[in-house]
Amino acid sequence: MYISELDTPALTVNLDILERNIAQMATLCQNLDIPLRPHTKTHKVPQIAQMQIEAGAQGITCQKVGEAEVMVAVGIDDILIPYNIVGKPKLERLMQLAKQATITVAVDSDITARGLSEQAQKDGATIQVVVEMDTGSKRCGVQSPQAVQALAQTIVDLPGLDFQGVMTYPSRLEAKPFIDETLELLRKDGISVSMVSGGGTGSEVNSKQIGCTETRSGSYIYEGMQRIGPETVNPETCALRMIVTVVSTPTANRVITDGGMKAFTSYPPTPYGYIIEQPEVKIYGMSVEHGHIDVSGSSHRFQVGEQLSVIPVHQGMTSNLHDELVAVRNGQVEAIWPIAGRGKVK
Amino acid sequence: MYISELDTPALTVNLDILERNIAQMATLCQNLDIPLRPHTKTHKVPQIAQMQIEAGAQGITCQKVGEAEVMVAVGIDDILIPYNIVGKPKLERLMQLAKQATITVAVDSDITARGLSEQAQKDGATIQVVVEMDTGSKRCGVQSPQAVQALAQTIVDLPGLDFQGVMTYPSRLEAKPFIDETLELLRKDGISVSMVSGGGTGSEVNSKQIGCTETRSGSYIYEGMQRIGPETVNPETCALRMIVTVVSTPTANRVITDGGMKAFTSYPPTPYGYIIEQPEVKIYGMSVEHGHIDVSGSSHRFQVGEQLSVIPVHQGMTSNLHDELVAVRNGQVEAIWPIAGRGKVK
Repeated sequence: MYISELDTPALTVNLDILERNIAQMATLCQNLDIPLRPHTKTHKVPQIAQMQIEAGAQGITCQKVGEAEVMVAVGIDDILIPYNIVGKPKLERLMQLAKQATITVAVDSDITARGLSEQAQKDGATIQVVVEMDTGSKRCGVQSPQAVQALAQTIVDLPGLDFQGVMTYPSRLEAKPFIDETLELLRKDGISVSMVSGGGTGSEVNSKQIGCTETRSGSYIYEGMQRIGPETVNPETCALRMIVTVVSTPTANRVITDGGMKAFTSYPPTPYGYIIEQPEVKIYGMSVEHGHIDVSGSSHRFQVGEQLSVIPVHQGMTSNLHDELVAVRNGQVEAIWPIAGRGKVK
Repeated sequence: MYISELDTPALTVNLDILERNIAQMATLCQNLDIPLRPHTKTHKVPQIAQMQIEAGAQGITCQKVGEAEVMVAVGIDDILIPYNIVGKPKLERLMQLAKQATITVAVDSDITARGLSEQAQKDGATIQVVVEMDTGSKRCGVQSPQAVQALAQTIVDLPGLDFQGVMTYPSRLEAKPFIDETLELLRKDGISVSMVSGGGTGSEVNSKQIGCTETRSGSYIYEGMQRIGPETVNPETCALRMIVTVVSTPTANRVITDGGMKAFTSYPPTPYGYIIEQPEVKIYGMSVEHGHIDVSGSSHRFQVGEQLSVIPVHQGMTSNLHDELVAVRNGQVEAIWPIAGRGKVK
């Protein structure tokens, strides 16, 4: 089947670019001597996670239990969930996973650690734990090396938990004193540390420099506009593209497509995407089911029924809106992959 | 099952409020003597569409063919799709629907009309058609009464198409001269008009005044923050709420929940939602999987594991992110409805 025969909007990935991005990151991490644990939230596709592992990744990262479930289901056996898992339904699901694979989770509070321990004991499971540090991202995470030290001791003492180390995001050079002091405190307490997890794409060198034992790089997989910025978007390295159809040409300067916020998300609000065939025109707005294009800067005469290939801005949020990813090589559909991790908010 | 036992984030609807909103809109339209064809894009749930029909709606509106398919599957037999349907895969699906139900679609170009006609003939189907007018929304739609007249004549002449009239969105009083002139031109041409479709919630009086034969009101179903504005959000009339869990309390003023952009969408960017239990605190940001709350304005001591009920801002975009809607009455789960129209971008 040719791309042109696809019903639209269709989320597609260029396989040649995808494979090159995977190989390049594997080489980069090998050269830096830092193991790669790719964050799969960007793509949410088990087949792509398997390609990353085949290229040398030591395991993967998932952001929610539901994302990890679809990865364990295809046999992936080493997963970090850098998230505080709270509440009975999720803890029960987590322990089921921990019986099938090596599962590591992040905690930043006593309450979360104790909840994990109670459920692990109840279910006869063991769960690996790292302490999340807030080294400047101002989201979750404990606030000081001393707080890591105290929580680490709690985790070491709790049954069912296997303390592994620490994690942070993103990997900033400014985090080094925090991490160094933390590791020194833990060493003095005789608590061994096997994991110092950092992220993400673009900060692999930083991760190595601040002492991380792995990098959770994720967005390199599609290498999209959100990371590299709208000015430097490059169809040669961006693997993801949405095929949309022109559905209306109501005025000389306005073209409307069938790809709106429900296909592309609305984050960030601008830019809305990059049109590969006609980069000179601008998507100036999106409603829920329509893309609005200003074609005043183009001599191309857009026609109802014409298909366009748009590089989305936020790859992870966009992937979360689609049930399937169409894998394309040389203009032909080579596979259709379920985005099995889509919608797994729990 | 109590709400408190739900895994989170969980999208829930308060059934008492939902039923009241349905009854109130039915009464309003009866009193105005304007038939109601609710737009189901807000909820995407067949069970709710059936409740709207039982309350007197003459049919429903769906924005995409995929949304109409899930509604026809439960026996709903009169659907308007106010959208230019373009391309072979979608036209084939549309004609299958047109054999099972009365389907009306909008067109604003010769190309779209001819595509519909060709497929209708090929499949032995008949499809009802209205011309979409651009009366100021600057999206799709023909630009003048004379353009409606010309396209209407084309449609009347094309086999397989059954011309019904016109549609616009939104229903502004300023649209009346455009509509009046259009109807006069069609009358002179001897083209009969049975449908003048307007929308949406809040413009029912306008729709009646500008001569519409029906209103496609949609957002009344949940009566959410997006329509009435963040200043007047009212938990007594807003039926939709997301149950989220506090997963981190890293500092005295910062609380993090498990509901981020992947649960709530990111449109519009602010406000992010309204917390019913603690309206004095502010969701100041969202990342993909986390909600960030500033609790400096509250004396309440938030705890990891605590659940909060958040009124989402954009009800339709939020509904599109979830597989299930939990129907709740008096704090108890009464039903779990599949959001069957979720993700139907095609």
